[in-house]
Amino acid sequence: MIIAMKPAASLREITAVIARLEDLGVTPTVSKNEDATIIGIVGGRKGLELAPVAQMPGVAQFVETQSPFKRVSRDYHPEDTVVRAGPLTLGGGGFAVVAGPCAIESEQQIQDVAARVKALGATGLRGGAFKPRSSPYSFQGMGEEGLKFMQRAGKAHGLATVSEVMNVRQIEIMVRYIDVLQVGARNMQNFDLLKELGGAGKPVMLKRGLSATIEELLLAAEYIINSGNPNVILCERGIRTFETETRNTLDISAVPLCKQLSHLPIIIDPSHAAGRRDLIKPLTLAGIAAGADGAIIEVHPCPDKAFSDGKQSLTYEQFGQVMAGVAPLVEAMRGAKS
Amino acid sequence: MIIAMKPAASLREITAVIARLEDLGVTPTVSKNEDATIIGIVGGRKGLELAPVAQMPGVAQFVETQSPFKRVSRDYHPEDTVVRAGPLTLGGGGFAVVAGPCAIESEQQIQDVAARVKALGATGLRGGAFKPRSSPYSFQGMGEEGLKFMQRAGKAHGLATVSEVMNVRQIEIMVRYIDVLQVGARNMQNFDLLKELGGAGKPVMLKRGLSATIEELLLAAEYIINSGNPNVILCERGIRTFETETRNTLDISAVPLCKQLSHLPIIIDPSHAAGRRDLIKPLTLAGIAAGADGAIIEVHPCPDKAFSDGKQSLTYEQFGQVMAGVAPLVEAMRGAKS
Amino acid sequence: MIIAMKPAASLREITAVIARLEDLGVTPTVSKNEDATIIGIVGGRKGLELAPVAQMPGVAQFVETQSPFKRVSRDYHPEDTVVRAGPLTLGGGGFAVVAGPCAIESEQQIQDVAARVKALGATGLRGGAFKPRSSPYSFQGMGEEGLKFMQRAGKAHGLATVSEVMNVRQIEIMVRYIDVLQVGARNMQNFDLLKELGGAGKPVMLKRGLSATIEELLLAAEYIINSGNPNVILCERGIRTFETETRNTLDISAVPLCKQLSHLPIIIDPSHAAGRRDLIKPLTLAGIAAGADGAIIEVHPCPDKAFSDGKQSLTYEQFGQVMAGVAPLVEAMRGAKS
Amino acid sequence: MIIAMKPAASLREITAVIARLEDLGVTPTVSKNEDATIIGIVGGRKGLELAPVAQMPGVAQFVETQSPFKRVSRDYHPEDTVVRAGPLTLGGGGFAVVAGPCAIESEQQIQDVAARVKALGATGLRGGAFKPRSSPYSFQGMGEEGLKFMQRAGKAHGLATVSEVMNVRQIEIMVRYIDVLQVGARNMQNFDLLKELGGAGKPVMLKRGLSATIEELLLAAEYIINSGNPNVILCERGIRTFETETRNTLDISAVPLCKQLSHLPIIIDPSHAAGRRDLIKPLTLAGIAAGADGAIIEVHPCPDKAFSDGKQSLTYEQFGQVMAGVAPLVEAMRGAKS
Repeated sequence: MIIAMKPAASLREITAVIARLEDLGVTPTVSKNEDATIIGIVGGRKGLELAPVAQMPGVAQFVETQSPFKRVSRDYHPEDTVVRAGPLTLGGGGFAVVAGPCAIESEQQIQDVAARVKALGATGLRGGAFKPRSSPYSFQGMGEEGLKFMQRAGKAHGLATVSEVMNVRQIEIMVRYIDVLQVGARNMQNFDLLKELGGAGKPVMLKRGLSATIEELLLAAEYIINSGNPNVILCERGIRTFETETRNTLDISAVPLCKQLSHLPIIIDPSHAAGRRDLIKPLTLAGIAAGADGAIIEVHPCPDKAFSDGKQSLTYEQFGQVMAGVAPLVEAMRGAKS
Repeated sequence: MIIAMKPAASLREITAVIARLEDLGVTPTVSKNEDATIIGIVGGRKGLELAPVAQMPGVAQFVETQSPFKRVSRDYHPEDTVVRAGPLTLGGGGFAVVAGPCAIESEQQIQDVAARVKALGATGLRGGAFKPRSSPYSFQGMGEEGLKFMQRAGKAHGLATVSEVMNVRQIEIMVRYIDVLQVGARNMQNFDLLKELGGAGKPVMLKRGLSATIEELLLAAEYIINSGNPNVILCERGIRTFETETRNTLDISAVPLCKQLSHLPIIIDPSHAAGRRDLIKPLTLAGIAAGADGAIIEVHPCPDKAFSDGKQSLTYEQFGQVMAGVAPLVEAMRGAKS
Repeated sequence: MIIAMKPAASLREITAVIARLEDLGVTPTVSKNEDATIIGIVGGRKGLELAPVAQMPGVAQFVETQSPFKRVSRDYHPEDTVVRAGPLTLGGGGFAVVAGPCAIESEQQIQDVAARVKALGATGLRGGAFKPRSSPYSFQGMGEEGLKFMQRAGKAHGLATVSEVMNVRQIEIMVRYIDVLQVGARNMQNFDLLKELGGAGKPVMLKRGLSATIEELLLAAEYIINSGNPNVILCERGIRTFETETRNTLDISAVPLCKQLSHLPIIIDPSHAAGRRDLIKPLTLAGIAAGADGAIIEVHPCPDKAFSDGKQSLTYEQFGQVMAGVAPLVEAMRGAKS
Repeated sequence: MIIAMKPAASLREITAVIARLEDLGVTPTVSKNEDATIIGIVGGRKGLELAPVAQMPGVAQFVETQSPFKRVSRDYHPEDTVVRAGPLTLGGGGFAVVAGPCAIESEQQIQDVAARVKALGATGLRGGAFKPRSSPYSFQGMGEEGLKFMQRAGKAHGLATVSEVMNVRQIEIMVRYIDVLQVGARNMQNFDLLKELGGAGKPVMLKRGLSATIEELLLAAEYIINSGNPNVILCERGIRTFETETRNTLDISAVPLCKQLSHLPIIIDPSHAAGRRDLIKPLTLAGIAAGADGAIIEVHPCPDKAFSDGKQSLTYEQFGQVMAGVAPLVEAMRGAKS
């Protein structure tokens, strides 16, 4: 950490900052030249908050020089983490597709989807049993019954199941039926949930919050890993911006950035990012080109009759068209990566 | 709900939309003129999702004509709701101030703050025992011990206590010690928490999420009221934008908008919005002028030594200066309101 | 300027950075302690770009310690600048109101508005003759004829006239008729226009761009002052965010921030910020409470028949209600300012 | 256009809206069912502003059913527009790369860059002679001399030249030396500039504004086409969001969206979007996968000594690595497009 004093800072102001730091138990090192004074601080106890010092008279800037995350960082773990859940492998060079409906609506529905997306190349099956909905009057999900249907569908067709856990009390039941526990965008900073998922014993797919920075996403992952669960999959699902043509703005740069900063796998969710089915294919292909490890895509037997998210769900035929584009691009990327 | 067909929509496209709607069990009414066809839909069963119809060929626009919220709406409840918690009254024309530290750090600290803010005019005492922190390595709060300290401080000085509840499991313990349960910005769409707070029997202060629209804030309040708790206080605490001079951007327009759309009281949190103490006074006064029912302000015996949020916390002296500005403005607003 | 090296930076990396800086003609000063190296840079020739150094191996942070603006800064000019244009005074403690239609539509319209807003307390008259419109198919303004109407209306009723200049070629004609030249939000970084306004000899009202930071706004003002025109009025008119209830989000914090960073007067434009007339009064009052020097408000004889911006224009009666609230608040603020 | 009345609208309110519309010279058509009234409006004179009607009592929604743009629209011109400037072809299925420095710094520099980027596969040469800079104290460009250098470099190496025009007065000189005139993000809504470029007789590359919606970008293009110049190239260069890891957020969805809505070619500018060189390759490849017609990339002989934008400029070697990835991906996309 470094504190830069203003060129015009008085000796008295500089001394006051140094005294405050010593008071806080850290040893500042001071360096001066003709018109600037820099105060360096090394270490300091955990949780020490030095930000208030930034408000002292004469202080120009307060700069953090150390990365705020540790265990998610590539510095800490240089090789790619590969997360495996049965047939689903994320990280390590491939491109996996998780597909399925927004919500589990019936056993037949989820069985039917599982059969079809498997045949088209998916290795994971998505579907919500507990649905976070903006309005209390919207469909809230089938609950445990839905989880059972999903487990059976995953087993029947050899697909890893992915479903959202909404609160700490649901973890136990989710773990019983589901292979990968998803943390939704609205819960990305539900820190108690993150901590308890550290002991879940199943991989966690962590979606980026609508207005979360990449640093905050990685810190949220740090909560899970720090609590004992190294199997975290990051998911870029669009951020909230002023643009209204799409539901959210897919931040494609998040893919190479997370790859650079972290060893964790990262996938994209073009369905929630775009909120409209006509962009799923180009965004999925863009994800591959940007270096993503996979995608999670909404597919429904009859999107126009879906209980939720029908606008962005693909038909089987449309999903087949996406998958037809995936293979040649994944192949080409092997050559393109320098 | 209305579906507007494109001027160039074919008869076949129009017929297909009508057929789909009838299929979904609603009765469309069709009106045409020389170059537009409008399909109106009235009612429809709860939770029915018509959005996919918007994707059908020939559809230009899909318009919701009914307000998405009911119980929070001023249409439903024209008079202002007044929320009371002992000495704290929010709504109904006054301007109440809740003050205190970001986090409870010791019994002495919270007792000292309570005495001072009370003397300066506050009627509520804030302080966190469970702290949502971006990093797992930051101070996480004192937990139940802190709640006990806070309860004693509130009672000793005649202040209503306000503290954040972070998950469903904490509700029981919070209710035992605290007068107003706060839902933090990061939990605004933690729907299970909102539902369970419906049965908490204590007022809830609901903070707007960093990237939540006003509609989403009101829908989150709807969850609480719909689950049985009418005593909800809205809190505008800044939204995330591109501007970096302030931690967040206080959306001052949210105050008159919420007043117009809803009967619930709304307060502002200038401390979290600005993230810097030098703006607390002008923002608090702006809140009064915009029609807010109160403000929640961070005050610390020694902000430079605070465990968290010291940068935005006021000293007692600074808080006194804010309160000195509050009284004349509240008085003036009585005349200014037409 | 300071360059902070990563704790793990090698001696070779540190040496390379120092060599590069010397190469660029600056004298770095180096300070080290047990695990950090800080390189300070003082001065450097104008326009020198050191940012690429930030990309060199081992560099953690690159920190600017000097304010990017000079002439707009309060450090440079501690007293408030007061801009005067006949009866209109901005800065120095009062609160002035500029009112009028979005666009000049006829001589009768602008004369009528001038008479009415003057009677209700305005000292400036706004109205566009050249209109920046998103669509080429929208009304583009009356041009020079409109300027003549406006000049006559301003003179007849003792109001300073304010109108937008859209490009460098219009400056000459604008100066002939208008008292205060307005730079629109879309032109805030039209640097050639800013430079030429430096020689205009009339005050300039500079509107903040839709996505401009406060620093960028002040740098834009710096262009004008640096080119010879010290009479610049800043205008906060809302920034673009994800919220859709209002056309833009009035960044009320910009008012006290600009007051702190700069000596220039700052006003708010609640009409363009909100985009709806029902928020004009609370936002104007919030502006006063936040310390603004004035407001610019759209008023139209018959808003429902306006050629543009009718949705946000006030009737005379509504404008009278706003002005009725302004006086007591301005009075109260005299007491509230500590 | 459609006006939907609130379910609770009174007959009087409905009648008032109809009367107002008739007053404005349009013929409304009314349709009612048990609880909603819809008023349709067809046609209306150019520039008619109906928005104020949306403020009348009883009105629920005001819906535009017609596309706001005409000439840029795919409905108007179903086939892809192909823009050609000598060796540079944009649109029609290929992927072209325009490369070069941020600013022209000397004849040697631009000649050297031209030779190298040509050898690596570029068909266009970029470089600024007039630089829009946030600060008046930054390097402002070489002006006409730079244009001459650029013209010679383009001719010598068989590259089309692309350079930014900043104001209406520069068009004449730019046209003399440059093949493609670029409109910068800050000037996207400098409507006078757009109109005059309609008569420039050279293709125009129009960059999306930092906070411009896709609709606004297309309307800006409409200004140019409507003024007589059909050769417009759209450029997605990142939008301003809260994320700070990248300078802007590349909105990759803009590529397929513009392709869908318009017949104009669209390219991406990964250099300005990311603001850092380590993301240029993945973003360029993502652009190809999303369907872009090209990319414009900053390349500098020695980025660390660049006068501007050095942080995001590539060395020749890095540019070579990007180009090595481009070819296989363009090839693969031929197969991936369904």
